[in-house]
Amino acid sequence: MKSSADYPSKTERIDIALRAGALADAAGILAEMSPGDVAYLISSSPPDDRDLLLGLLEREQEALIVNELPEELRNAALIDRAPEALAGLVEQLDDDDVADILHELPEDITGQVLAIMDEQYRQRIQAVLSYPDDVAGGLMSTDTITIRADLTMDVVLRYLRRHVELPPSTDNLIVVNRSDRFVGLLPIRTVVVSDPAVSVREMMITDQEAIEVNTAATEVARRFERNDWVSAPVIDDQGKLLGRITIDDVVDVIKEEADHSLTSLAGLAEEDTFATVWQSAPRRGIWLAINLATALLASSVINLFQGTIEKVVALAVLMPIVASMGGIAGTQSLTILIRAMAMGHINDRNQLWLVGRESLVGLLNGIVWSVVAAIAASLWFGDTTLGLIIACAMLLNLITAGITGAGLPLLLERLKVDPAVAGGVLVTTITDVTGFLTFLGLATIFYG
Amino acid sequence: MKSSADYPSKTERIDIALRAGALADAAGILAEMSPGDVAYLISSSPPDDRDLLLGLLEREQEALIVNELPEELRNAALIDRAPEALAGLVEQLDDDDVADILHELPEDITGQVLAIMDEQYRQRIQAVLSYPDDVAGGLMSTDTITIRADLTMDVVLRYLRRHVELPPSTDNLIVVNRSDRFVGLLPIRTVVVSDPAVSVREMMITDQEAIEVNTAATEVARRFERNDWVSAPVIDDQGKLLGRITIDDVVDVIKEEADHSLTSLAGLAEEDTFATVWQSAPRRGIWLAINLATALLASSVINLFQGTIEKVVALAVLMPIVASMGGIAGTQSLTILIRAMAMGHINDRNQLWLVGRESLVGLLNGIVWSVVAAIAASLWFGDTTLGLIIACAMLLNLITAGITGAGLPLLLERLKVDPAVAGGVLVTTITDVTGFLTFLGLATIFYG
Repeated sequence: MKSSADYPSKTERIDIALRAGALADAAGILAEMSPGDVAYLISSSPPDDRDLLLGLLEREQEALIVNELPEELRNAALIDRAPEALAGLVEQLDDDDVADILHELPEDITGQVLAIMDEQYRQRIQAVLSYPDDVAGGLMSTDTITIRADLTMDVVLRYLRRHVELPPSTDNLIVVNRSDRFVGLLPIRTVVVSDPAVSVREMMITDQEAIEVNTAATEVARRFERNDWVSAPVIDDQGKLLGRITIDDVVDVIKEEADHSLTSLAGLAEEDTFATVWQSAPRRGIWLAINLATALLASSVINLFQGTIEKVVALAVLMPIVASMGGIAGTQSLTILIRAMAMGHINDRNQLWLVGRESLVGLLNGIVWSVVAAIAASLWFGDTTLGLIIACAMLLNLITAGITGAGLPLLLERLKVDPAVAGGVLVTTITDVTGFLTFLGLATIFYG
Repeated sequence: MKSSADYPSKTERIDIALRAGALADAAGILAEMSPGDVAYLISSSPPDDRDLLLGLLEREQEALIVNELPEELRNAALIDRAPEALAGLVEQLDDDDVADILHELPEDITGQVLAIMDEQYRQRIQAVLSYPDDVAGGLMSTDTITIRADLTMDVVLRYLRRHVELPPSTDNLIVVNRSDRFVGLLPIRTVVVSDPAVSVREMMITDQEAIEVNTAATEVARRFERNDWVSAPVIDDQGKLLGRITIDDVVDVIKEEADHSLTSLAGLAEEDTFATVWQSAPRRGIWLAINLATALLASSVINLFQGTIEKVVALAVLMPIVASMGGIAGTQSLTILIRAMAMGHINDRNQLWLVGRESLVGLLNGIVWSVVAAIAASLWFGDTTLGLIIACAMLLNLITAGITGAGLPLLLERLKVDPAVAGGVLVTTITDVTGFLTFLGLATIFYG
């Protein structure tokens, strides 16, 4: 497989060492790997190996590795530790990562950890913690380097040399005025190529707008993507600089957002690939329960037509085709809409156009495939009436699929219901019911 | 909606101007916006508005905006231009973007554009073009700044000042030896804080491994994610530096990969949200055709049991429940596996564990929901035999769903078939057939 081919020696050697019980050897190899690679190894291991690996980490590695773990694993690894141990661990991380970790822990633990920290550090962390983690404020780090516009490059360079190192992903210095309001950005790559005598004002860029602290995380991600930013300043509603957001945190937002659409549509709650059976089964069960209820609803529609089915058993043979075609078409429209919503492509100007497009796509494909289905059914059962009935029902169901697949997510969003979570089950229920109702209803008219 | 709230004035003003036919006004507003924002506006507009907007772009903006458009729109906007116009347009872009654009155009056009370029530039572009766009080589830009390890910081700074500006996303200078082999990285943020007298060798970082040029794009994306890189050097198999990859291109890979899982599972080919009806309908139709064929297969299974259904019509009422529960459970397992594969979490060590976990989840949920379904069916039709039959069939189908939902994508990958594309239809076909076969088969034994 790809991953083992790319990292053959280290992961394989760790695996062999674990199997042989040579834990010291495994620990030695772990110590040589980057925190991200170790976190990846842990998160792609079944539960038992995970605990074993977590126990082998060196103290100075641990914070960085735990920080890179997916949320659920990170919480599991931290939840049982004493507040002192937690405070010691998070101290090695960036503000935004610390806030991220503390956000997820129970409130009393967070309080205890904060109480141990020194005053200044606590204030910085609390500034980030005061924002929910799905807005710009929750993504930001307060660790910024600010300068004034009237300095010369020479002075800037001397000022920078007073730092032992600059915060990670520092591509720009942030230019502020006397009252700490954001004025512009000075790329470090500009500092190093500029004449030492020119002023910051002459070289700074002013066309990158700062991000207001309450901007939604998804909107932050879209601005980064659109403008290829590596970092961006965060301001309050008065324009005062609060911190900055870096691309590594934005990448996490992008991944989570894409992941949310995929898993929600399949009825999966935030799910860890390697959760145990006892964790997974109940989470999946909820969706199966909802589906059982809606399937019973669809069945009760079929039940209305028992008499007709008794007369023409071929109806029972063909009815799943009508329902399933509607379900597929509806899911296609729904996926298109959910994806477009996640990308921020939907607005008042194009909503109606999209519902119209999907309905027409349903109509066109309805015409084509209902004719094919009609021919197949007529030949199979030697009954053209049956063919006519399946054609009409399928055409109606594919148009319904287009309208509901596109319209429903828009409606759900207005009702503040997540369309990725609720959309799938609603759309397929509607297409199932429509499919059975039109097919068996028409049959009752013709054969009843 | 979110996007119009964030950019109320400009997009709305453009919209009003377009409706009023005041094209000059619209063009004026476009000229003030960033290329990424304009590209976003164009890609979230219905087809007619797109053409209108594309026609309004100023020449100097155009290249940057077209570069930010999604692939399909970009190709549509470029395909009809003369080679000279194309060469003039792409000249303003980074190497990797030029290669990306030329990759997608027909080969004869690419050849004509290359022929117009000057020798040195052509060689650089061809170096990138010689790699497929799904490996590191296709993502890289050859626009790098290299230095030697024996220089002092002072010399490095003086060398940098000879550049008017550094390439975008330049966070590191790349340290190479005399034969151009990659030696290490010197972050610019280190250059600016270091004592002018120290050497590059003392300050450079050597623990970030370079990326081999044939590494898969998805693996490149994972390494960036895991290690929070902003850029990374690309080397050939001899360790010679070829170029570098920057995070903006990696973000595109991450988005495309996530998007691929989502759309493929719904049977959507690479699809533009705002494609016309005539583009969308045939693309969706292919999947509907495949589904029609598999639905006919499932129907032919039902057809075997016409006699039993005639006797007990309640079977026709209940059979879709068994099939649909299997379909949902199978899709859940499949989605988990496809997501894990896309994240590179699957390897030889954990494959069997995962298939086992999914089978057990199927077994557990099978026990729970088959009992619920049995009670519901028994009460509804006053027939405990029917309840027993539906329970057995559902249990079997949910276990089948777990095994195939997890096992099939692994098998498909071994056969070099994309599991996201083929998995969905195969899994639901298997659960449909299993559902109908076990339910009606058992019923035939009990009632036949």
